[in-house]
Amino acid sequence: MAEVVATNIDKFFQPRGIAIVGASATPGKPNNQILEFAKQMSLHGNVYPVNPKLDEISGLTCYPDLLSIPAPIDLIVLSVSPRNCVRVAYDIKKRREEKGDAGAVTVVAAGFREMGTEEGENLQQEMMATITECGARIIGPNCQGVVDAYNGVNTTFSVPPNTPKGGVSIVSQSGAFATSFLRWARDQKLVGINKFVSLGNMADVDFTELLTYMADDEKTKVIAMYMDGINDARSMIDVAAKVTRKKPVVVIKAGKTSMGTNVAHSHTASIAGNNDIYNGAFRQAGVIRAQSVADFYHTARTFDKQPLPKGNRICILTVVGGPSTICVDELVLTGEATLAHFSEPLKKELAKYLVPSANIGHPDGYIDMTASVTEKMHADVLKLLMQDDDIDGIIFMTTPPGFIKDEGLAEAILEGYNSVPQAKKKPLLSVMLAGNAVAKCRTILEENGLPTFEYPDDAARVMVNMIRYSAYRRQNS
Amino acid sequence: MAEVVATNIDKFFQPRGIAIVGASATPGKPNNQILEFAKQMSLHGNVYPVNPKLDEISGLTCYPDLLSIPAPIDLIVLSVSPRNCVRVAYDIKKRREEKGDAGAVTVVAAGFREMGTEEGENLQQEMMATITECGARIIGPNCQGVVDAYNGVNTTFSVPPNTPKGGVSIVSQSGAFATSFLRWARDQKLVGINKFVSLGNMADVDFTELLTYMADDEKTKVIAMYMDGINDARSMIDVAAKVTRKKPVVVIKAGKTSMGTNVAHSHTASIAGNNDIYNGAFRQAGVIRAQSVADFYHTARTFDKQPLPKGNRICILTVVGGPSTICVDELVLTGEATLAHFSEPLKKELAKYLVPSANIGHPDGYIDMTASVTEKMHADVLKLLMQDDDIDGIIFMTTPPGFIKDEGLAEAILEGYNSVPQAKKKPLLSVMLAGNAVAKCRTILEENGLPTFEYPDDAARVMVNMIRYSAYRRQNS
Repeated sequence: MAEVVATNIDKFFQPRGIAIVGASATPGKPNNQILEFAKQMSLHGNVYPVNPKLDEISGLTCYPDLLSIPAPIDLIVLSVSPRNCVRVAYDIKKRREEKGDAGAVTVVAAGFREMGTEEGENLQQEMMATITECGARIIGPNCQGVVDAYNGVNTTFSVPPNTPKGGVSIVSQSGAFATSFLRWARDQKLVGINKFVSLGNMADVDFTELLTYMADDEKTKVIAMYMDGINDARSMIDVAAKVTRKKPVVVIKAGKTSMGTNVAHSHTASIAGNNDIYNGAFRQAGVIRAQSVADFYHTARTFDKQPLPKGNRICILTVVGGPSTICVDELVLTGEATLAHFSEPLKKELAKYLVPSANIGHPDGYIDMTASVTEKMHADVLKLLMQDDDIDGIIFMTTPPGFIKDEGLAEAILEGYNSVPQAKKKPLLSVMLAGNAVAKCRTILEENGLPTFEYPDDAARVMVNMIRYSAYRRQNS
Repeated sequence: MAEVVATNIDKFFQPRGIAIVGASATPGKPNNQILEFAKQMSLHGNVYPVNPKLDEISGLTCYPDLLSIPAPIDLIVLSVSPRNCVRVAYDIKKRREEKGDAGAVTVVAAGFREMGTEEGENLQQEMMATITECGARIIGPNCQGVVDAYNGVNTTFSVPPNTPKGGVSIVSQSGAFATSFLRWARDQKLVGINKFVSLGNMADVDFTELLTYMADDEKTKVIAMYMDGINDARSMIDVAAKVTRKKPVVVIKAGKTSMGTNVAHSHTASIAGNNDIYNGAFRQAGVIRAQSVADFYHTARTFDKQPLPKGNRICILTVVGGPSTICVDELVLTGEATLAHFSEPLKKELAKYLVPSANIGHPDGYIDMTASVTEKMHADVLKLLMQDDDIDGIIFMTTPPGFIKDEGLAEAILEGYNSVPQAKKKPLLSVMLAGNAVAKCRTILEENGLPTFEYPDDAARVMVNMIRYSAYRRQNS
């Protein structure tokens, strides 16, 4: 297997300057939005609009062409018509030859291969040939470009600059899917983002190279990918199998059905490939394939925040019977997870802190603290569960009784969770079933690295994904 | 098959007066909450606290026992210790013999059969024998009682009085699950509630009788049930098969696995039964079994708001490729739904209103309006799709471009949807992928009866559920 080297990819994420070809002065237009977002997010302010019809856009000098920008530009955003993209490609080549910069290009423009026409195909080929000839790298065409939350890069018209920072890097063939993910991140404050790459037609930079790059990117804790289909699946899977030894890769792969495959093809001209083969290959490579959009979202954010379980023995800590039943069903359904075994000493200890009517260990691994629970009981019980070596992970479920205060509950949970040193930590997923009534508690837990969920089965599926990945890591370390 | 007659069930939902035995004056205590909620929600104010230690609670005369309440009371809430419940049972019997009222009892108290002890079993038996002997009906024990949003009844300590009104009636063995559902209803404003019944141990009133009752309840458009397990599954299924000829029944059934079954047993002392047998029985009876909590929630609320599809031919209308691929995958996965066929005249008409680069019918049944879409295009295209007899339902997906205004988009969608008379309506599910950025649009659509979704696969699953139920109705009418 050939070694994949991610050449010049860092130019996309750490550019000295960004040129926006096609920048517009009309508020609301995508090409104005691109400039505004790039400007707002830029750490150093080296953003250069290019538009021969304008002298200035919102305080920035506007240049007639790429060649006249005096400062170094590493990243170029192409948002002009496909024909103009081809023309500008020659400027890029020239600039690269003359000044040596212009190493990275994101082509936002659409109207290329994804059109399914000869014209689109030819335009894409000519543009690509010109740019790649000079060693520059291209993301797109028909994409939304890149975001780097830490390095202050944003070439999109759709990702607001105030997306919260975190360890999830998302790589997507669908710009809309990835930007939705980032909007959820911002609105729900449940997930933090590091890098965002919208790949579009994937004419040059692809999943394989980005996997390689992000494997070594320190701030990326989880790689989350949306995939229509890929040309060189084998090479991608080979690389993924190496990357997953270092960090989790979560994938949502479209084209499960032949009709879905047809849609994928009209979207990014990609071939979805056989679904079962992908399933097997992902599993073998330690890639977690999400079963739904919700699963993708929750799994990625939880991997970012929580340690891996050391095994598959899960404790259910609850005050609500029905949701717990649903949770346990989903947890053990695939056979990968099981309920933990409570030792007699543990049960005796637990009984000291809970009310007599509490259910401790019926069935084994299950605790119902009942509605007579107090804030303190949460801390006491969690301390015991965190210390117990026969428990690999905890799912906690509640609709807190009215007399329990949001802050007090959150503090008690954190006290229990943080009672053991980092190396002894195990995943704790909290299902908060009471809507807005527990909003403050959720916020405090999330801010302190404890993921919260609205639905019990969502949490169970995430725990199974963590168990699966953890098993892969143990077998491949 | 014996005819099920729902005797005296209306006393729970239309009581002349409600007595709350065990009412407390201490704010925050569940027994105070029950009284407050009952008072706040009561249309006529006939709420009577019973507590021998108090003369008055928050402005209401407090009675020492049930027998001393001078006004008619049809519904009694028992929230005292199990032993006291047994004692009060004799008062209920006496009152019934003397005054003829007291026909309905909800037993909130826990500590009965669900304890798995001889004592709990004996207490339940004695209480039940005493109350049922005199012809009164019981919901519980170990339950949260009932809510009727239209008739102003609330016997719970957990369902806030301001739950939005609607056509979904929920019947649940899990109080926590059902109250969470109602909290989502209130917080997200996506679903409206008619009746709520928390069944608990189900010692008397059960699913079968409530199905019978709600089938004839005009304001109930959808019956949504959470089930641990039931004693007389055959009778329930027989009744459900009749009810589903009139209105949809959506079920989430716990105990898919043996571990889940064990939890269900500890919860409500019920036997979950064989999962595959339930699957088959539900399907044959036209009962929609939800696959997840999200599926349950979204399916119930959509049945309430939308007409049934007349067939299985679905049109995908979108501006976002990736989410649409996920949606189509999920839509056609079970083989029950398919993409619609666009006639040549329809395609020509569509092309008149869309930009040249729009994708009309690749694949068949699929339209990508592209990011060059306008508000008006939504109205124009939806009009054509609503009128077309070869399309049975529409899933619309968007992250609206920045220049499209929330209100304008919502109005255009409504204009398109409402361009045909009621009898010609077909389901239109809208997936709004842009988080809070489309919050206003979602609110307007929801208020006008158009359900909105965050994730494309959620909408697809709901559409499949509607198609399945519609097919059942056509085969059993």
